[in-house]
Amino acid sequence: MGMFRDDLEKVTPYQPGKPIEEVKRALGLKEVYKLASNEIPFSPLYIRKAILKELPYINRYPESGCFCLRKELAQKMKVDEAEIVLGNGSDELIVLTLRATIGKDDEVIVAYPTFLIYEIQAQIQGAQIVRVPLKEMKYSLQDIAAKVSNKTKVIFIANPDNPTGTYVNQREVEVFLESIPQHILVFFDEAYFEFAPKDFPKTDAFLRKRGNIIYSRTFSKVYGLAGLRLGYAVTTVEIAGVLNKIREPFNINRFAQVAAVAALRNKKFLAKTLSYIQQEKRYLYKELKKMEICFFESATNFILIDFKTTTKELYEYLLRKGVIVRELRGWGLANFFRVTVGLHKENKKFIDCFRGYIEKKGERG
Amino acid sequence: MGMFRDDLEKVTPYQPGKPIEEVKRALGLKEVYKLASNEIPFSPLYIRKAILKELPYINRYPESGCFCLRKELAQKMKVDEAEIVLGNGSDELIVLTLRATIGKDDEVIVAYPTFLIYEIQAQIQGAQIVRVPLKEMKYSLQDIAAKVSNKTKVIFIANPDNPTGTYVNQREVEVFLESIPQHILVFFDEAYFEFAPKDFPKTDAFLRKRGNIIYSRTFSKVYGLAGLRLGYAVTTVEIAGVLNKIREPFNINRFAQVAAVAALRNKKFLAKTLSYIQQEKRYLYKELKKMEICFFESATNFILIDFKTTTKELYEYLLRKGVIVRELRGWGLANFFRVTVGLHKENKKFIDCFRGYIEKKGERG
Repeated sequence: MGMFRDDLEKVTPYQPGKPIEEVKRALGLKEVYKLASNEIPFSPLYIRKAILKELPYINRYPESGCFCLRKELAQKMKVDEAEIVLGNGSDELIVLTLRATIGKDDEVIVAYPTFLIYEIQAQIQGAQIVRVPLKEMKYSLQDIAAKVSNKTKVIFIANPDNPTGTYVNQREVEVFLESIPQHILVFFDEAYFEFAPKDFPKTDAFLRKRGNIIYSRTFSKVYGLAGLRLGYAVTTVEIAGVLNKIREPFNINRFAQVAAVAALRNKKFLAKTLSYIQQEKRYLYKELKKMEICFFESATNFILIDFKTTTKELYEYLLRKGVIVRELRGWGLANFFRVTVGLHKENKKFIDCFRGYIEKKGERG
Repeated sequence: MGMFRDDLEKVTPYQPGKPIEEVKRALGLKEVYKLASNEIPFSPLYIRKAILKELPYINRYPESGCFCLRKELAQKMKVDEAEIVLGNGSDELIVLTLRATIGKDDEVIVAYPTFLIYEIQAQIQGAQIVRVPLKEMKYSLQDIAAKVSNKTKVIFIANPDNPTGTYVNQREVEVFLESIPQHILVFFDEAYFEFAPKDFPKTDAFLRKRGNIIYSRTFSKVYGLAGLRLGYAVTTVEIAGVLNKIREPFNINRFAQVAAVAALRNKKFLAKTLSYIQQEKRYLYKELKKMEICFFESATNFILIDFKTTTKELYEYLLRKGVIVRELRGWGLANFFRVTVGLHKENKKFIDCFRGYIEKKGERG
């Protein structure tokens, strides 16, 4: 008899983007630019005050219900406090959704490729995975709807998608949801929501109309709090009740709770960040076009680049120059890589090194 | 067809101790003493420097492997880095252990009553729960061993136990482990390890000898970092590998990582805390004896009190006076309550109010 569940053997663990600290240690570099994990390139230093005010209480367990944060978030989202679930990052919201729904032989529908955690955690939960290929690097909701069976329990939709940066719009989602039975939970992961354009779906309105929807957002991206771990989901009171019942009681640390409240109140940082990222994304678009590099227009703070040939050597070249981008072999996209919009100097360094690599290859070839 | 797993209906969620903020809000009190959740009564303010140094990186995801913390912890524990699993509190280590092991119809053995999360999370994982009653408020490892079946996958042992404060010693554990098959995982939750007396079991030596052991400790108790969420487990490289494979990749926030490193290096705070708690525990023992109150000698920073009659009214009386203790109805111990060793003024206030309540009842009766 084994100690572990047999079906865990097929699980391939998630490989995070290389951390700056690790690359510095491994390559002996002093300056390393990380354009690999879709973080914003500056820290919300204004949370300092909230953090220091909370420090004297750090010996105490956090408030399980996140009273103040929940209230602030409900106000901002114009939803009921009981419709919110808070997670130790959105990752935890994905896990809770799976733990609440998946029994033996149940199916989970995921796009391929997309954010990897859906599939990994569904496997860990023992679900059968139904992969639906992207079409021209975009979710095909029609193809997903066609895969619904009487075993389907959850459908994950990253919108905007990662690693492609593409998104499905209001009309596509509307048609799609009409074909999905009410007992199937549709999980919209909207981690990059704040970067998305105007015809982005009004998920909350669909939730009000249909009920079988959960949408998650995060403080890890535009709010710049990835290091603190905080995601949130909005859904019906009933669904939120089940997820809140099965979560660990103290899943949200105290500093995350107070920093998020400060973040929700700081409209200036948000506006500044969005405008900076848009401007730098345009800069990257422009430079990539000059270089005749093929890329996908992005509704996020990262860009998917089609290098047309394996990116392994390029990735390692950039790494040695101190620029971390994201290889996509683990997504089955060996000819692609993903670059996060960073500070101007970081973006420029990336472009310079990328151009240098291509020129060097050109000379050799 | 339902959206959720049917077997979730029987799950009763964990009820945390009332937070200070909530009691202040609800009762309009200015000063509230929380002696309900076994935290130490002061904050490790010395982590301020480490927190502020980390603030500029808070926009970045934490290092998934917790490189520096893992190294520091391995050194302190004299174990290999690959033998450590870090959790968002020990709660997460319990959840990971269950997720890794429990399939349909598998059994989990838990004492009754004990720390509630084992049973709640085992239920959520779909396990059959085998409850083994305490004997005179102490784990009976003999009774537990007698309940092992061919469906048993995990045995949870809170040592020292919560809410009783009792513990099983080296000899008891030695005999017990000899009777447990090698494929059954024995999880020793040693959250209160640092408070325990000298004949406490050498769990690490048992792990080296037998392999089917995981023991967890926490930064939430003696280190005073409950608000930051950090627990750790030591086990074999193989078991640690499985738990690390199924955890969420960024489960430990950045501030927890750097604060824990600072905590491990600060021997003075640890020594001061331990000596303060021991002294105040003696004070509480002495006062309770004077009052002829029945209590259990504790190997922890809390005391289980046998009130011999329902504690409901007493609990509410203390609450109105601004003293939060822990009711134990949820543990099936309606005549008992648990009080955490706090600051001297908090302990004195508790004793004064408790004495006041008894005298008032005496007059009336």
